[in-house]
Amino acid sequence: MKLDPETDLTFTRTLQAPRPLLWECWTTPKHIRNFFVPRPHEVTDCEIDLRVGGRFNTTFNVEGNKVVNEGVWLEIIENKRLVFTDAYGEGWKPAADPFMTAIIDFKDDGKGGTIYTATARHRSSAARQSHEDMGFLGGWGTVATQLEEYARSL
Amino acid sequence: MKLDPETDLTFTRTLQAPRPLLWECWTTPKHIRNFFVPRPHEVTDCEIDLRVGGRFNTTFNVEGNKVVNEGVWLEIIENKRLVFTDAYGEGWKPAADPFMTAIIDFKDDGKGGTIYTATARHRSSAARQSHEDMGFLGGWGTVATQLEEYARSL
Repeated sequence: MKLDPETDLTFTRTLQAPRPLLWECWTTPKHIRNFFVPRPHEVTDCEIDLRVGGRFNTTFNVEGNKVVNEGVWLEIIENKRLVFTDAYGEGWKPAADPFMTAIIDFKDDGKGGTIYTATARHRSSAARQSHEDMGFLGGWGTVATQLEEYARSL
Repeated sequence: MKLDPETDLTFTRTLQAPRPLLWECWTTPKHIRNFFVPRPHEVTDCEIDLRVGGRFNTTFNVEGNKVVNEGVWLEIIENKRLVFTDAYGEGWKPAADPFMTAIIDFKDDGKGGTIYTATARHRSSAARQSHEDMGFLGGWGTVATQLEEYARSL
């Protein structure tokens, strides 16, 4: 995949947990609740229909405010890649003003861990900048740390 | 699939050709050239990588003007359903200003023909209206007629 620095944000970390376990965390609502937003924010609801075009909806409690995120899965390669976006609702209904498409890649590091790459692709450089200003690197980095800790606790 | 009359356009026709033949026409560049735009407009180029996220690019000659359409396949259910959009380029690169998502459904009519449904979903009612004003029903209807004639000639 060729990235575009104008519109994409990405980071790679090695997590000390095997790919199938991280995959299970990412694709199971009860696990999502345990790592998916930086604490003390909370995931209060999560619905997953794990098929291309199926829903991936989450609700967050952010300082008392309810934040609803509705989207779908675009690509699912078991234990390797997840792609999802808010650009569609179920039935391929286009969203009026989509924000991003997220690509999570999982690779073995050859030592029992996982090379974890999270990429957010945007429609414009302004959207990318806005996401960067919202704290993409810190936020998604914290989520990766929480994922690693939670996966290791299972 | 629940349609939204505010933002969707759709029509259904019965075509006198079997589903697998129509499917082959829709997924093969050399066949696409023979029906995909209302004549006398021409398809001058077509590239298909028939997998989810793979490219579906076409170039038209419209009265001497070169019109390039780049998109990807979102869903592929052999002989039953094709979904594609200009909302992404390959690698899930979001388009700055996508126009539509197209869903082509093929069902047996029980008499050797195919119930053919073409649906275009849009991000806004303005986009739907613009597509309607561009002649969605006439244009896609002509394409369906050309598809039927071409498939029957094979």
